[in-house]
Amino acid sequence: METDVSALRRESPRLQTAMRAFAMLGIGRTGWIEKPRPVCGPLDAICRPIALAPCTSDIHTVWEGALGDRHNLVLGHEGVGEVVEVGSLVRDFKPGDRVIVPAITPDWSASESQGGYSMHDRGMLGGWKFSNTKDGLFAEYFHVNDADGNLAHLPSGLEPATAVLLSDMAPTGLHGAELANIAFGDTVCVIGVGPVGLMAVRGAVLRGASRIFAVGSRRKCFDVALAYGATDLLSYKNGGLAEQILKLTGGRGVDRVIVAGGGVETFEDAVKMLVPGGTIANINYLGEGEYVKIPRAEWGVGMGHKTIRGGLMPGGRRRMERLAAMVLAGRLTPGLLITHRFEGLESVEDALLLMKDKPPDLIKPVITVSWE
Amino acid sequence: METDVSALRRESPRLQTAMRAFAMLGIGRTGWIEKPRPVCGPLDAICRPIALAPCTSDIHTVWEGALGDRHNLVLGHEGVGEVVEVGSLVRDFKPGDRVIVPAITPDWSASESQGGYSMHDRGMLGGWKFSNTKDGLFAEYFHVNDADGNLAHLPSGLEPATAVLLSDMAPTGLHGAELANIAFGDTVCVIGVGPVGLMAVRGAVLRGASRIFAVGSRRKCFDVALAYGATDLLSYKNGGLAEQILKLTGGRGVDRVIVAGGGVETFEDAVKMLVPGGTIANINYLGEGEYVKIPRAEWGVGMGHKTIRGGLMPGGRRRMERLAAMVLAGRLTPGLLITHRFEGLESVEDALLLMKDKPPDLIKPVITVSWE
Amino acid sequence: METDVSALRRESPRLQTAMRAFAMLGIGRTGWIEKPRPVCGPLDAICRPIALAPCTSDIHTVWEGALGDRHNLVLGHEGVGEVVEVGSLVRDFKPGDRVIVPAITPDWSASESQGGYSMHDRGMLGGWKFSNTKDGLFAEYFHVNDADGNLAHLPSGLEPATAVLLSDMAPTGLHGAELANIAFGDTVCVIGVGPVGLMAVRGAVLRGASRIFAVGSRRKCFDVALAYGATDLLSYKNGGLAEQILKLTGGRGVDRVIVAGGGVETFEDAVKMLVPGGTIANINYLGEGEYVKIPRAEWGVGMGHKTIRGGLMPGGRRRMERLAAMVLAGRLTPGLLITHRFEGLESVEDALLLMKDKPPDLIKPVITVSWE
Amino acid sequence: METDVSALRRESPRLQTAMRAFAMLGIGRTGWIEKPRPVCGPLDAICRPIALAPCTSDIHTVWEGALGDRHNLVLGHEGVGEVVEVGSLVRDFKPGDRVIVPAITPDWSASESQGGYSMHDRGMLGGWKFSNTKDGLFAEYFHVNDADGNLAHLPSGLEPATAVLLSDMAPTGLHGAELANIAFGDTVCVIGVGPVGLMAVRGAVLRGASRIFAVGSRRKCFDVALAYGATDLLSYKNGGLAEQILKLTGGRGVDRVIVAGGGVETFEDAVKMLVPGGTIANINYLGEGEYVKIPRAEWGVGMGHKTIRGGLMPGGRRRMERLAAMVLAGRLTPGLLITHRFEGLESVEDALLLMKDKPPDLIKPVITVSWE
Repeated sequence: METDVSALRRESPRLQTAMRAFAMLGIGRTGWIEKPRPVCGPLDAICRPIALAPCTSDIHTVWEGALGDRHNLVLGHEGVGEVVEVGSLVRDFKPGDRVIVPAITPDWSASESQGGYSMHDRGMLGGWKFSNTKDGLFAEYFHVNDADGNLAHLPSGLEPATAVLLSDMAPTGLHGAELANIAFGDTVCVIGVGPVGLMAVRGAVLRGASRIFAVGSRRKCFDVALAYGATDLLSYKNGGLAEQILKLTGGRGVDRVIVAGGGVETFEDAVKMLVPGGTIANINYLGEGEYVKIPRAEWGVGMGHKTIRGGLMPGGRRRMERLAAMVLAGRLTPGLLITHRFEGLESVEDALLLMKDKPPDLIKPVITVSWE
Repeated sequence: METDVSALRRESPRLQTAMRAFAMLGIGRTGWIEKPRPVCGPLDAICRPIALAPCTSDIHTVWEGALGDRHNLVLGHEGVGEVVEVGSLVRDFKPGDRVIVPAITPDWSASESQGGYSMHDRGMLGGWKFSNTKDGLFAEYFHVNDADGNLAHLPSGLEPATAVLLSDMAPTGLHGAELANIAFGDTVCVIGVGPVGLMAVRGAVLRGASRIFAVGSRRKCFDVALAYGATDLLSYKNGGLAEQILKLTGGRGVDRVIVAGGGVETFEDAVKMLVPGGTIANINYLGEGEYVKIPRAEWGVGMGHKTIRGGLMPGGRRRMERLAAMVLAGRLTPGLLITHRFEGLESVEDALLLMKDKPPDLIKPVITVSWE
Repeated sequence: METDVSALRRESPRLQTAMRAFAMLGIGRTGWIEKPRPVCGPLDAICRPIALAPCTSDIHTVWEGALGDRHNLVLGHEGVGEVVEVGSLVRDFKPGDRVIVPAITPDWSASESQGGYSMHDRGMLGGWKFSNTKDGLFAEYFHVNDADGNLAHLPSGLEPATAVLLSDMAPTGLHGAELANIAFGDTVCVIGVGPVGLMAVRGAVLRGASRIFAVGSRRKCFDVALAYGATDLLSYKNGGLAEQILKLTGGRGVDRVIVAGGGVETFEDAVKMLVPGGTIANINYLGEGEYVKIPRAEWGVGMGHKTIRGGLMPGGRRRMERLAAMVLAGRLTPGLLITHRFEGLESVEDALLLMKDKPPDLIKPVITVSWE
Repeated sequence: METDVSALRRESPRLQTAMRAFAMLGIGRTGWIEKPRPVCGPLDAICRPIALAPCTSDIHTVWEGALGDRHNLVLGHEGVGEVVEVGSLVRDFKPGDRVIVPAITPDWSASESQGGYSMHDRGMLGGWKFSNTKDGLFAEYFHVNDADGNLAHLPSGLEPATAVLLSDMAPTGLHGAELANIAFGDTVCVIGVGPVGLMAVRGAVLRGASRIFAVGSRRKCFDVALAYGATDLLSYKNGGLAEQILKLTGGRGVDRVIVAGGGVETFEDAVKMLVPGGTIANINYLGEGEYVKIPRAEWGVGMGHKTIRGGLMPGGRRRMERLAAMVLAGRLTPGLLITHRFEGLESVEDALLLMKDKPPDLIKPVITVSWE
């Protein structure tokens, strides 16, 4: 099927009822499909994308079947868009507005949201809707639930290609630092310095960490880790992580660990390198293994005050606005993550495959889309 | 060897240099030994016991070798005593004072204490000194480090036999409620309702829990659980705990779990019964198993915000004073835990063996000792 | 105008377009008016009252003009109702459902709500809508914004007359205990033991306070204070509060103060009786005075770590559900607050005037309304 | 009297019993005096200074009589020293060690310290001992209570002249950021950008603030404010602070205010510029005025959730070690505060007078002292 987006673009959005989208066709299969354009409810907005990015979790979803089998599910949950339609109850947005779209778009009235866990609205991970329980952003049009609660105006001075990193990479990484409960002077180990882990490094700096150990293997990522404030670079390839950390800290270990890579077995090292009273914060999708492995003895036989937490990023409008303000104030420079740039909606496919292949010089690709 | 305590008692404490004590002789072996009376440093106090209690962890120590092999280590870490000597720098205590002795006696200057984790002073579990890294209380005399920081005056109106439960049972149980981070209206499951779990039930009430599920099997414990505020009683024997809880809560689960019994496998149920955003607080000594088992999927593939914590009780003077104030104000009635009473230092042996045998009607034995 | 509610009751709710309501006509004036029945938006519900209660803040509103002049504003913000209509997007409620209505009904999508302060949605105190920025509950029909987010099902076993105390009295009082940040064993002084202060006493017990000093003057209130767990009763009439507290505590003072009565000058006593590191939590509407008076020297010349906070209760569905669960679990017995009972919508007038007169035996009046 | 320090230096420290010191002679009067060299208790250390700094609070103490009249009280509480003697129970320090000395040296066993408020040990502000309740550092020798708990080894790579800023300036400023409870993206106003306020600016950056408004008037301070991360500079001279802030924020105000200058009236502006749910953190010594002025209406008539806190910095060894680690990791560059450098113990007098005169180009003077 030819990708004839430009023809569709020439039609009036109002009249148009079908659209092209890049979807998961089934486990291991992706492709362009035609779908009805989403319908806008009273609280909602319909947008078209102006910047997009694929995410490692799209890879998990398609090629590992992490969410189970899905058919014709539109992929993508990182984006900046332009509003084309809003519902009758929407107050703060109108067609033509440029907006940051969070990966997590909660139902803010839900009991879980009222209790502070909007990312789990109406059930665990319930706030994660795009490319999970509804169509994602890799389409000519996408639907956003609760526009007033979930969209943020793109501030002038913030490029869409940079802002797209606020959808998921920045809030996930920074949430790692939040969950880690960092106090002034804490030493922190960030395990895994892909784009999320790099943002966790920056988040740790911005919570007052002193020494930050960044664990990875790729030069490109290490360069950004240093730019973001890491003080020590460690490779998985040089031996056990706990051993390396304990050696570097004179046997003491670190106050906080942020897990942004690895698997269920990573927690063994994390517990071993952690001081009593410390915290492990996981922001990594754990795709396989029956049990997360917490070593009993080093966990203080249950009494060591080594807290283990992990959570999906908080989304919604307020979080996006605050991240944008942090970028504008110079606290975050998410643009350093961008290693590959694409243009045109059609290129989401190439960008996704690049993400799948993960060449050594890749941190994060972004796609910009222009609609004349 | 005859237990000739009374002869020793007739001698002046000042002149006396030897004492009798009940000790772990080696793994699996206990007995009465003679030891030098402890020496009092400038910050310390020497006391003699007026109420004592054995603890399940004494059982772990002796018969399971939980702390490794120890020779002639005096047992016991729950007690009320009378001060017989104080060091030159002690300000607030003098011979003759009756005092509550916490199981955990931190070095309050240590870095960990300054950071809020006094129970891990100078290393994990470092605040636990009695019957672990120094002689315990089951002796004619015992030594308390940092008397001003670690002893509390026994208030008038509080019986020694009741106050002895403030050494470990009450603070450990209540610490479970603290670690569980209970908010008004939270539902709580307390797994294991021995004396510590029962205190955790009470602690949950005193943090504002609504429904409290108490998991156990013995009638005597269930009676106290109800008296302390449990609303639902569950037995291990009626099927999987998570299944029972999910059934009783319409599939929702509970907001908090306090683990006061079971083993490394108990965490599987705990995670399964927990809502996203919930907390598991462990106060149970985990004696065996290589890994604590955290089920990956029900832990939200790492992103469910199900926090797992566990920690040794905070000790020291301030905690003891506050618990005593809670008893005097009628918030806690730890005396309900006492099912067996003994008299005389010699009976610590019988009380300990009772603890080891754990008959159905046992919750907690206490020993009172009088020195004329 | 005759109060012919029964005639209106005979008409079909669907057809009915006018209703009778008890309103503030202007400062110092109240009366029955006829108003159009409220219209139901897609997220909303229309209810009729089955239990109601007047609040001291209704008195402030009408006779002190606390909110400024208002004309024909329907009074009342404490109630239990029956749903008669719901909007098209409402999921969890249907006509015929009996519901608890919180005094505070936030817009849960607002930025402030996302940030944890739903009671200040879209501006300070913005969550307080009933009898403030929209019509209240003292009418044949009332409108509830965001039904799914703000109504709670009345559980079986909970009487409407008791449940009406969950609209405002219980959550306001308990919020005082939350704001006071009470830890196990804290001593607490509750200044002012009207219905809200009494609930604060109970809230303090349910956060683990030890000694609780209740400050008031009326016997009836003191009786309930003791029933709720106060240990010491103090009267304003016996001298300065700080002096009394310092005397009763051997000069130490209290760890927490909950201000549920008095005025801007009350904070002087509160600061003076507070220990360094303590917290003052205000839940009292401060109706007059230019400045809240914080005594500089006793505030530690700015460095005493005496935190001063105050806040409107959190409302919404989740809070109501949790309070109801606490009542069902036996933690709260708000029914003890009810000293006067009325029947019929017409009697809201008498109940309000009773509240205004405040006889010595009054704590709280409630009105039940039956619609056959 | 001639300042013959060099003669004293030639004597053996062990034999020497008198020393020269710069002291407050009475209100408004300072001078050099001779005093007995301090005696070392079992837990203590005796040090001689190698870097010192005067503090604005020395000015308050001497010329405003802020602590009341004092006679021959040795001034100074910011310093780096060399240990010359330690008590018998000191474990971690020995003569010859170079150490950072915190301004606040708590008794870590005190009840307040156990409760998390070590700066108020045994009474409000009790942790502040140097140049307050005991002799300070401006002497040939000074005494440190609880050496293991209160001294920190000066790390290699950290200049004494920089490290002296960790005694008080850095921890006080950073404590402002801690008390302000800053979350990612919060907007912050720092009122007063002397050395402490500047450190508060840096602290706000290191807790994740976005926009930071720095209020001051002097160019030199503004330059450092920008270097530390302030985004907006405001002067008292351009009109009401609250008005300026509200204008710059489109009427919204700021999330947090750190008060590091001004007086009791400053809180009026602080409350007015603060959003509901915000926090005001005071780290400024409030030297005069009967009441701190909290404007009732803008404080939300008591219900606006505008928290007001203020507190003395936390001292002790752990805090010093952590600040040093932050400097070594490049998070803090306290050296930017140093505008004037002196050499020799004798020059503490000139440095103090400079502090008193406060020329426009002054931020902070430091004195280095060499003992051959």
